[in-house]
Amino acid sequence: MAGVRFHSVLVTGANRGIGLGLVQHLLGMPSPPQWVFAGCRDPKGQRAQELQKLSSKHPNLVIVPLEVTDPASIKAAAASVGERLKGSGLNLLINNAAILKANSLDTETLKDMSEVYTTNSIAPLLLSQAFLPLLKKAAQESPGSGMSCSKAAIANVSSIGGSISSFTGWDVMEIVSYRCSKAALNMLTRCQSMGYREHGILCVALHPGWVQTDMGSSAGHVPPVTVDASVGGMLKVLSSLSEKDTGTFLDWEGNVVPW
Amino acid sequence: MAGVRFHSVLVTGANRGIGLGLVQHLLGMPSPPQWVFAGCRDPKGQRAQELQKLSSKHPNLVIVPLEVTDPASIKAAAASVGERLKGSGLNLLINNAAILKANSLDTETLKDMSEVYTTNSIAPLLLSQAFLPLLKKAAQESPGSGMSCSKAAIANVSSIGGSISSFTGWDVMEIVSYRCSKAALNMLTRCQSMGYREHGILCVALHPGWVQTDMGSSAGHVPPVTVDASVGGMLKVLSSLSEKDTGTFLDWEGNVVPW
Repeated sequence: MAGVRFHSVLVTGANRGIGLGLVQHLLGMPSPPQWVFAGCRDPKGQRAQELQKLSSKHPNLVIVPLEVTDPASIKAAAASVGERLKGSGLNLLINNAAILKANSLDTETLKDMSEVYTTNSIAPLLLSQAFLPLLKKAAQESPGSGMSCSKAAIANVSSIGGSISSFTGWDVMEIVSYRCSKAALNMLTRCQSMGYREHGILCVALHPGWVQTDMGSSAGHVPPVTVDASVGGMLKVLSSLSEKDTGTFLDWEGNVVPW
Repeated sequence: MAGVRFHSVLVTGANRGIGLGLVQHLLGMPSPPQWVFAGCRDPKGQRAQELQKLSSKHPNLVIVPLEVTDPASIKAAAASVGERLKGSGLNLLINNAAILKANSLDTETLKDMSEVYTTNSIAPLLLSQAFLPLLKKAAQESPGSGMSCSKAAIANVSSIGGSISSFTGWDVMEIVSYRCSKAALNMLTRCQSMGYREHGILCVALHPGWVQTDMGSSAGHVPPVTVDASVGGMLKVLSSLSEKDTGTFLDWEGNVVPW
């Protein structure tokens, strides 16, 4: 991990898939974070069992109730994380929660377009706004100049599906609502990198690969990248980032993805 | 106009700004379209007076009631346009209707993000779906192979504000909701160009310039491009397009804009 330690991290959509993988990898690091906050819609529900098991073994894991499309829930989560941090800042916000509707261009609807955008694009904006005071605090607390993910950063989990330039996979999945939402998330990342630069907060968009999750498999194909490889790669990439990387779009192996 | 005639055109958001300018220019052409359909929310209202005046002089102008965020209104508009066309197709759909909220990164809200996306990104999808049968019919009716705007085309009026690569104007206007919606519209244009290619429908995203309209002036600056120059330029660009241009992003002078 190039010696970089993530002191405190919040992962949204943490109860399964890539989010759960990120939590597991963070907890398993040689120098694990002091706090891993795992945002999940229903912490006591059936779908959060893996997180519950992990939290019984790892006292540094805090499961945070979080419905990312609900501003009140986001506000409550920021308050509860702030309380736990006891005056310290939050170093890394990973906006991972996302949904996908397996629609074609012909079957997209107002409702699906709107729901996908709200979760995949608006929620990362709202979360960043709500956690901004904690991210600013982390940047101010950290010694030295420059930017890094051990200082203060926002990582938006995007997708190459949102790359307008490369535009891949149309034959496999049309998923217009998803593609549009991720292109918008990439734009948001650029905006955040500009707006939060003065606060010393690094902002990056990540393509996790086409990963073996429920979402990745929803087109009936077997994706080539394991959760382990994707998550391990992304954390390695995150640990290597510096000021020059803010506002970029990188894949899980560190390659630049075209907008 | 390079000899290309637009036989039938629908312009959304046609009661003012660029939309009204497009209608005026189309009606003033040496060979004007057989039908110009001007979509507008409230055809009998105060804000549609210019359109009403024009329609009293131009029998080929049809004002169509159209609320672009309402699927029922879109459906009704498609039916009424189809009826007027008496079995012929629609050659050119110009998705021009758009809104802008002069927010900063810090002041964006769920509501504004959602409203801007619905009008600027989802509506062009829904309109294209609803008018697809008429666009297909126009493509089938037109002689010869290849694509053009006199045959069948969708022009999405985007903005350089939606260009993630060039990312200009942040110091003047942050307008995150608008930027994200236009990046998504650009992605939609790519998707439509792929999906509608088999039907012979050309799809293009246009940057109209920073134009002297109510929207363009909303940041308190005087934009450099007149409505006349923008609209004249865009119609010239549209008239010049062929198959190689489908799925591209061009400005009002015909230059390629990076995604």
